[in-house]
Amino acid sequence: MKWQGKVYLVGAGPGAPDLLTLRAARLLEQADVVLHDALVHPQTLALAARARRIDVGKRCGGPSTEQAFILRRLVEEARRHACVVRLKGGDPMLFGRAQEEIDALRAAGIPFEVVPGITSALAAAAQTGVSLTRRATSRSVSFATPRTGDGTEPTDWTAAARSSDTTVLYMATRRAEATTQALIAAGHPPATPVLVCADVSLPGSVTHGGHLHELPALCATIGDAPAIVMLGEVFREAAMRHATAAATSRRA
Amino acid sequence: MKWQGKVYLVGAGPGAPDLLTLRAARLLEQADVVLHDALVHPQTLALAARARRIDVGKRCGGPSTEQAFILRRLVEEARRHACVVRLKGGDPMLFGRAQEEIDALRAAGIPFEVVPGITSALAAAAQTGVSLTRRATSRSVSFATPRTGDGTEPTDWTAAARSSDTTVLYMATRRAEATTQALIAAGHPPATPVLVCADVSLPGSVTHGGHLHELPALCATIGDAPAIVMLGEVFREAAMRHATAAATSRRA
Repeated sequence: MKWQGKVYLVGAGPGAPDLLTLRAARLLEQADVVLHDALVHPQTLALAARARRIDVGKRCGGPSTEQAFILRRLVEEARRHACVVRLKGGDPMLFGRAQEEIDALRAAGIPFEVVPGITSALAAAAQTGVSLTRRATSRSVSFATPRTGDGTEPTDWTAAARSSDTTVLYMATRRAEATTQALIAAGHPPATPVLVCADVSLPGSVTHGGHLHELPALCATIGDAPAIVMLGEVFREAAMRHATAAATSRRA
Repeated sequence: MKWQGKVYLVGAGPGAPDLLTLRAARLLEQADVVLHDALVHPQTLALAARARRIDVGKRCGGPSTEQAFILRRLVEEARRHACVVRLKGGDPMLFGRAQEEIDALRAAGIPFEVVPGITSALAAAAQTGVSLTRRATSRSVSFATPRTGDGTEPTDWTAAARSSDTTVLYMATRRAEATTQALIAAGHPPATPVLVCADVSLPGSVTHGGHLHELPALCATIGDAPAIVMLGEVFREAAMRHATAAATSRRA
């Protein structure tokens, strides 16, 4: 049997370099090669001091390396190096397209391990000080995306959002108008409290609050920054707080 | 104004000590006092070398310290020490009852910060090698619990579970029979693939797979261990793999 290395699919967390796990930091230090997403923090990449670093640049909506290329590259690198890290923003198993990479590694007989990361939704909840669950008012949270992959038949994400006490949407700011209409058509009251958090966990992070019907306007203010949309009754107080702050800063 | 410290509500992650974040590790090293849950790993607590450690022991279903006592204690400690860490299993904002502690700190005018942690669901997905989302087949995931707080009017968690492509249930193994019936009554096919992961991320972790109608039997095999229940089509292959493994180990 041919010698080969191991691939670690590692979550880099939401952005702040110290929201990496201890395990991820150790693996980066040991890595021979790191294939990373575009949005990984430079300080995180710097941990991989002895590794060759390859930007496979998956940036929502922007220029991205073909997934097929990443899969081929992962397999090739694992056949040449002992420790290959595939570093992904957030958590690999939540909107990280990890399954395609896992399937390719399995098919090639290459050992792998997945290292979880802090997903943006939890970092957004932390920085806004709003628990996604609450006794009595919220005991279900759904994480969904209105974004569709190329050539796929989308499942109905609005039903999950409507049925959950609290909803977090990933990659939802680009088509905010259509997303808002879909949520309202699915039964969400237009006055549902919403928060939009851009650049979660980073120093320049901004949060805008309001009601669901204002979501397109809130998303417009953050432009192209990666962002999380959160909606539900648990955000009522925080949405008011951040609405005031946004209005004040616009006036200033 | 009276001098006072700061409280950090910190997620300890799913169990494995190296799934702590770098930020959490640094705060533990700086802490004067640590109030921690029962299930936090001894190696994690050992990082708080200079702190007084207080076990406020919230263990699902077992003996636990009254929440009112924890709230009072947090405020008292923050008035005496510069750095108080409230260390919680998993992530504070997902089934961690953090809101009650945040509200108490706000009411007392005590500064606080929340540090996210790896939630068990993502660690379970990592160790089973199954992405919770997948292009085309899963773009919504709900995290829910059938467990009700004392004296609260429960919201309907089954609707969220039914409407999502993938579902993860926290604290669901104790009343597995009732939970299974509720899921089937809400429209989940009895043959929906399920995985039960106990002691997620720890060396003794076990995973059992099967179909929804077998959930009570799967939960019975893990006993009192803390566990995560995951269901949905994305687990079909893994449920079969772990069903075989479980049958083999029972035979051995």
